Order: sequence, then C-alpha cells, then structure tokens
Amino acid sequence: MTDPDGTPKATATPPPPSESGDVENQTPPAVEGGPGVVSNIMRRWKREDLRKKGSLALRGVGLLCSLLAFIIMASNKHGDGRNFDQYEEYRYVLAIAILSTLYTGLQVFRHVHELSTGREVFSSRRNSALLDFFGDQVIAYLLISAASAAVPLTNSLREGADNIFTDSSASAISMEFLAFFSLAVSALISGYKLANETYI
Amino acid sequence: MTDPDGTPKATATPPPPSESGDVENQTPPAVEGGPGVVSNIMRRWKREDLRKKGSLALRGVGLLCSLLAFIIMASNKHGDGRNFDQYEEYRYVLAIAILSTLYTGLQVFRHVHELSTGREVFSSRRNSALLDFFGDQVIAYLLISAASAAVPLTNSLREGADNIFTDSSASAISMEFLAFFSLAVSALISGYKLANETYI
Repeated sequence: MTDPDGTPKATATPPPPSESGDVENQTPPAVEGGPGVVSNIMRRWKREDLRKKGSLALRGVGLLCSLLAFIIMASNKHGDGRNFDQYEEYRYVLAIAILSTLYTGLQVFRHVHELSTGREVFSSRRNSALLDFFGDQVIAYLLISAASAAVPLTNSLREGADNIFTDSSASAISMEFLAFFSLAVSALISGYKLANETYI
Repeated sequence: MTDPDGTPKATATPPPPSESGDVENQTPPAVEGGPGVVSNIMRRWKREDLRKKGSLALRGVGLLCSLLAFIIMASNKHGDGRNFDQYEEYRYVLAIAILSTLYTGLQVFRHVHELSTGREVFSSRRNSALLDFFGDQVIAYLLISAASAAVPLTNSLREGADNIFTDSSASAISMEFLAFFSLAVSALISGYKLANETYI
C-alpha cells in the first residue's frame, strides 16, 4: 500500500515538472509573440521611414535636375540669334524649370523639416498626401510637356549648326526629362500613400 | 424583513421583463445589423461597379478622342508642302494617336467583355490592375508629349498662313489633349484601385 501510494506519488510528481515544463515551453512563444507584434510594427515603421526617405531622395534629384535645367537655360545667351528668349519653346522650358525648382525646393524643405523635428507642417495628413500627389503629378506632366515641346526646335536648329547654344538647350531639355522621371516615380509613391491613407 | 425581501423580489422581477425588453430592443439592432452589413457590402459593390463603369466611360472617351486624332491627322494631306508626313512632329502625333487608339480600344473591349460576362480576362486581379495603371499612365505621358511637341510647329505655320492644313493639325492636337485628360483621370482611378488591392 505504501508502494502503490509511493508510485502514485511518484507518478503524481512527474506531472508538475512536465506542466512546469509546458509552462516553460509556453513562455517562449508568449515572449516571442510580444516581439513578433513589436517587430511587425517596427517593420511597418521602417517601411514608412524608407518610403519617406525614398520620396525625399526622389524630390532631391528632381530639385537638382530642375535647378540645373533652370541655370543652363537661363544662362543660354550667346547673342546674335542664339538667345534662348527668342524662342517660345525655350521660354516654356525655362518657366517650367523655375516652377519645378520652386515646387521641389519647397517640398524638400518641408520633408527635411518634418524628418528632423518629427512634426507635420500640415495638420491633416490626408491634405498633405493630396498635395504631395497632385503636385508631383501636375509638375511631372508640365515637365514632360515642356521638354517635348523644345525637342523639335533643338533638332531643327542642330541641322543648321551644332554650337554651344544648341548644346546648352539640349542639356537643359535632358535635365528636364530626368526631373520628369524622378517626379513621375515620386507621384507614384505619394499616390500609393494617398490611396492607403484614406482607409486607415 | 418580508418587505425588504419583497422589494428585492419586486426589484428582481422587473429585470426579467426589462431583460426581455432589452432582448426585444436588442433584436432590432441585430436585425438592423444584418441589413447594415449587407447594405455596406451592397454599397461597396455599387461603388466598385460605379468605379468600373466610370473607368470604362473614361477609356471610351479616350478611345473616341484618339481615334478622331488618328483619322484627322492621317487624312491631313493637302499636297504641296501641306502634308502631315513632311513634319516629324505630326508623324509623332499620328504614331501616338494610333498607339493610344489600339490601347484604349483593347481596354474598352476587355472591360466590356468583363462587365457582360462577369469573368476576368486575366487570372490575377493584381496583374490586371497593374496593367491598367501603368498602361494608362504611360499612354497619358506619351499623349501629352506628342501634343506638346506639335503645338509650336502649328503655331509657327499659322503665322504664315491659316488654312485647312493647320486647322486639321490643330484639331488633331486638341483631340490628343482631350484623350490625355481622360487617360490621366483613368490612371488616377486605376492607381487608387491598385493601391487598395495590394492589401485586400
């Protein structure tokens, strides 16, 4: 009787260690579950951060290219029928380059400010996303329009003579095309952000 | 003691009717909740349907305008230095009008087919949304590029003489601008759909 009592006790004692072992086995998933959720949020934050930095970099490239197009076209005066302001296409290129420089400059300033202080300039995130998207998209359309309008003139001028005036015009147009590409991708990213924020 | 016992009973008896009243009061919200969910789904379906029909209408307008631009520019031959194929800008306009006609025609055909049969042409909804968005966006960029490129030439030709050749060119260019607007809005809608579908 003492032996059976001893054996039940012996069999009764194993469960507690096994249960404690289960508890020990359960605690790691519980601890893992915590970091799992946290790491999900962290991943989302990182993605959000990457998106912000990527869109800042794209606007930076856009600013650089627009500024170059602006400077090259504005200094494109070589006298004697070789001034940019005698051709309306080149005036259009210059006007859009100035507009794009102002827009991308303000956007880069705003995003750098937001990244450094962590505060939003606009109170409504949705308005800010709307502004980003429509601004990028409209400036991208204007940039490709201006660059396209100036290409045929440059081609026909180059048939006559290939000089520093046509070369400068061609480089300003190329810069506008590059600015267009970066703003088109930036519009893509901010459109994605806009569409996802309206339902969050 | 009986009064206090009676009053608790009296206060205890009211709850069952009030509970049954609550149940009766709760059932209407439950019944309302059912149609509420259903009406939400219905509203979502209706919105989805409206989006599909709106995007079909926009592509239809795009198809009409591209087709008009194509026909007007292709028939723009009046001999003696007034043929469209003597100017590369007009050849560009014609090429993009053909491309846009083909693209919007195929898209309209596909969407009409999907709306009438209810089956998707592409197995993956995401691929179909990607194709819609990138197709619309690229064609919109090409259309504004071609229209912008041809505007300065038409302006300078009109300074010399304002005849049927320049008028036809101007109307083809206007049609391309209209096609651009409808495809730009269509790209907006399909971009919205794409961004929301990646998370559903």
